[in-house]
Amino acid sequence: MRSSAFDFASLFPASLPAPAVKWTGAARYNFVGGHNDPEMVPVEALRAAANAVLAREGQALSNYTVNTGPQGYRPLREFVAEKLKRDAGISCTAEDIVLVSGSLQALDLINAVFCERGDTVIYEQESYQGSINRMARMGVNVVGIPLDDGGMRMDALAAALADLKARGVRPKFIYTIPTVQNPTGTILSEARRHELLRLSEEYGVPIFEDDCYADLIWSGKRPPALYAMSKIGGVVHIGSFSKSVAPALRVGYIVAPWEILSRALALKTDAGSGALEQMVLAEFCKPHFQAHVPKLCGALRAKLVTLMESLSEQFGTSAEFEDPPGGIFLWVKLPDQVDSMRLYQKALAAGIAINPGPEWSVNAPYSKSRIRICFASPSHEQIREGIALLAEVCRSEFGVPLRSANVQKRA
Amino acid sequence: MRSSAFDFASLFPASLPAPAVKWTGAARYNFVGGHNDPEMVPVEALRAAANAVLAREGQALSNYTVNTGPQGYRPLREFVAEKLKRDAGISCTAEDIVLVSGSLQALDLINAVFCERGDTVIYEQESYQGSINRMARMGVNVVGIPLDDGGMRMDALAAALADLKARGVRPKFIYTIPTVQNPTGTILSEARRHELLRLSEEYGVPIFEDDCYADLIWSGKRPPALYAMSKIGGVVHIGSFSKSVAPALRVGYIVAPWEILSRALALKTDAGSGALEQMVLAEFCKPHFQAHVPKLCGALRAKLVTLMESLSEQFGTSAEFEDPPGGIFLWVKLPDQVDSMRLYQKALAAGIAINPGPEWSVNAPYSKSRIRICFASPSHEQIREGIALLAEVCRSEFGVPLRSANVQKRA
Repeated sequence: MRSSAFDFASLFPASLPAPAVKWTGAARYNFVGGHNDPEMVPVEALRAAANAVLAREGQALSNYTVNTGPQGYRPLREFVAEKLKRDAGISCTAEDIVLVSGSLQALDLINAVFCERGDTVIYEQESYQGSINRMARMGVNVVGIPLDDGGMRMDALAAALADLKARGVRPKFIYTIPTVQNPTGTILSEARRHELLRLSEEYGVPIFEDDCYADLIWSGKRPPALYAMSKIGGVVHIGSFSKSVAPALRVGYIVAPWEILSRALALKTDAGSGALEQMVLAEFCKPHFQAHVPKLCGALRAKLVTLMESLSEQFGTSAEFEDPPGGIFLWVKLPDQVDSMRLYQKALAAGIAINPGPEWSVNAPYSKSRIRICFASPSHEQIREGIALLAEVCRSEFGVPLRSANVQKRA
Repeated sequence: MRSSAFDFASLFPASLPAPAVKWTGAARYNFVGGHNDPEMVPVEALRAAANAVLAREGQALSNYTVNTGPQGYRPLREFVAEKLKRDAGISCTAEDIVLVSGSLQALDLINAVFCERGDTVIYEQESYQGSINRMARMGVNVVGIPLDDGGMRMDALAAALADLKARGVRPKFIYTIPTVQNPTGTILSEARRHELLRLSEEYGVPIFEDDCYADLIWSGKRPPALYAMSKIGGVVHIGSFSKSVAPALRVGYIVAPWEILSRALALKTDAGSGALEQMVLAEFCKPHFQAHVPKLCGALRAKLVTLMESLSEQFGTSAEFEDPPGGIFLWVKLPDQVDSMRLYQKALAAGIAINPGPEWSVNAPYSKSRIRICFASPSHEQIREGIALLAEVCRSEFGVPLRSANVQKRA
C-alpha cells in the first residue's frame, strides 16, 4: 500500500463516494455480511464437480462465454429453470434466464434498465442495505412501505401508490424480498402476493422480486414466486447461489421477459460472468442441490437456536425478535434508549461486528434501536461468546440489559 | 424466451442503450472477440489446481472474499506482484493490487474514479472498442492521438495537450495500451515511454496503462511498464489473465497508489469477484505460468503466420499489414474503396465475423477501410478457409482484391 506524489484528487468528480478504509481483517465475532457456514460448504462434491466439468469441457474456457452465449453457461440455466419450476412454481426455460456475477450484478442491471436520477421506486421500509445504497448512489427516491409479521403491508402499499399517483409520480418498480425478507425474515403470504400483483397491475408499476434467500426455509415450503403468479408477466425475478451453496462463487440469475433481458444484456458489458464457477455449480447442482439445501438449513436452524437462546440468556426481555422461518439473520429490537449506530461503533471496538438498523431501513426513527445479527458464519461458541460480549457493551453504553436479565436461562 | 403483456417500455430511461439481439451462435469463421486457442487451455493443470486448492481451502468459499479482504485472494495478488516485477519491472506488493472481474471491470472502476459526463480523456486514435464504447456511454469526450509503427505519436500528443490546455481543458487521463496495442499491435518504445511520462507530468494528466496483452510477445521481451517508470506514481496499471490463461475465468487486476485503489474499492459494490477462479489461477500460476506463456505464444505465432500467408495468398497487395510482435489480432488496411462496415455485414451473412475499423477507432475516415482480424480462436484450417471466403465477399462487394492477386503464393 503506497501513496503517490501525483495530484490525483483534483481530478476526481465531486460525486465520488468516500474512499474505502483499508481492510484489516474481520471482527473476531462477525455477525455481518451474507457469509455462510464454512462447515457446510460441500467441498468434496464441488471438487468432484470441478474435476468432471474441466475434464469434459475445460477447453471451452478459451471462449468468453464457453460457447453458450451471453446469457451464461447453458447447463446451469437449465438447472435454474428446473429448480424454479420445482421450488417456486415458475415455468420458464433457459432462454428466459441470464446468469450474472451474484445477485448484486442483477440489482445493478435491473436498476439501470428502469431508473435514472430523480426517479422514484417503492421498497419495503426495512430492506437490504446494498439495495438501499444503490438507490442513494443513483439519486433515486425510495418510498418505504412498513412491514409486519406477514411482510410488506398491502394497505400501506395501496395508500402509497394512490398518493404517488395523486402527485403525478409513477414509480419505476416495487422492489421486494418477499420470501425470507432481509432483514425482517418474514415471508409474504400467498394472499398478500395476490394483492401485491393486483396493485402492481392497477398502477402499472412492475415488481422487482429479489428471492435470494428463498432456498433457506426450515420447512422447505414456500409460496409460489410472484413471477409465477403474475398473469401479465409484470415481474422481474432474481436469485442467487450465494446463500444455498457458497457466496464466494458469485453466481446469480435474472428471470424476466425478453423485453427486460435484452435491455439488461445490453448493459452487461463484462464479456460474461465467471464461467468456471457456473460450470462447477451446474455440475454440482444437478445431482446434489436438492439434498444439500435441507442439510444446510438444518445447520443454520441450529445456529439460529443458539443465537436466540444466547440473546434470551444475555438480554432477557431487552431483546425482542420473532423466530424467523428461514434465512441467515435475526432482526432484533433493543430498548428505545439504544442508539444502534453508536452500539455498532462500540461493539466493533470490542471485536463484535453487527449491522445497525438505520443502515437497513429507510425509516431512521423506526430502526434506531434495531440491529441485524447474521448467524451463519460464526460457530456456536462464537455466537454464545459474541452475544455475551455484546450484552456487556450494550449495558455499559446504554444501561440495558439490566444485569438481572441474565437470570433468564433457556427453558 | 418469452415476451410480456406488461408495458415495461414506457418506464425505460431515454438514455437506455438499444436492446441486445438474441444470440444465435458464433459465426462459422469467428475472427472477433478476445477468445483464445482452445487447444492451449492448460486443462489438466487447471484441474490439478482446482483439486488442490479446493481440498486445502474450499471451506473459505463460505466467505465472500475467502477471508482475504476486498482486494481479492491474497495468494493471487502475491503472484501478480512477483510476475509484474519479473516481466514489467514493477515494484509493488499485494497491498497495491485489487483483483477484479476481468480487466473490463478495471475499466469501469477507473473510468468512474476519474470521469463524469462532459469530461475529456485522451486515447490512442485506434483503440479497444469496449473502452471507446464505455466513454460514449458515459458522455465523455475522447481526443484521439494518431499512432505509427512505434505506437502513440508523442508529437501529436504534445500538440493535443497544448491545444486542450489553451482551451482550458484538463483531460482526466491518457488511456493507452502501450504493450501490444489493440488493434495495431504496436509496442511503445522505451524512449517514447519516457516522453509520455514527461508530458503526463508537465500537464498534470495521469496515465491509464492497459497492459492486458503484454504477456503475448513472441520474443518474451517487453519494455518496462509505464507504471514502473513513473517517478511520481502518476500511472494506474491494469492487466488480465484472460489472454494468458483463459478469458472465461474473468480475472484481472488494478495496480495503483492507494489514493486510487481506495476510490475504486468504494465503487466496487459486487461483494468481491469470483473467488474460485482467483484460487484456481493462483494455484495454477505459481508453478506453471512462466512455462505456459511461451508455449501459448508459440501456438499463437503459428496461427498469425497462417493468417498472414492466407491474406497474402488471397488478397495479394490489397491487404496491407505489419507483422505484429505479439497479440491475438492483426490490423489490416484494405483498398480505399472498401467500406469495412459494409464488408462486416456482408461477411457476417457469409458466416465470417470480423471487426470493422470504425468500431476500433475515433477517426472514422482513417479507419473506414481497415479491419481487425483475431486469429487465436479459429483453427489453422478455419483461418485459411475464412480468409479465402472473406476475399470472395470483398471481391464481389468492392471489386478487390482482383482475382489475379491469387497467384501470389507463399515464398
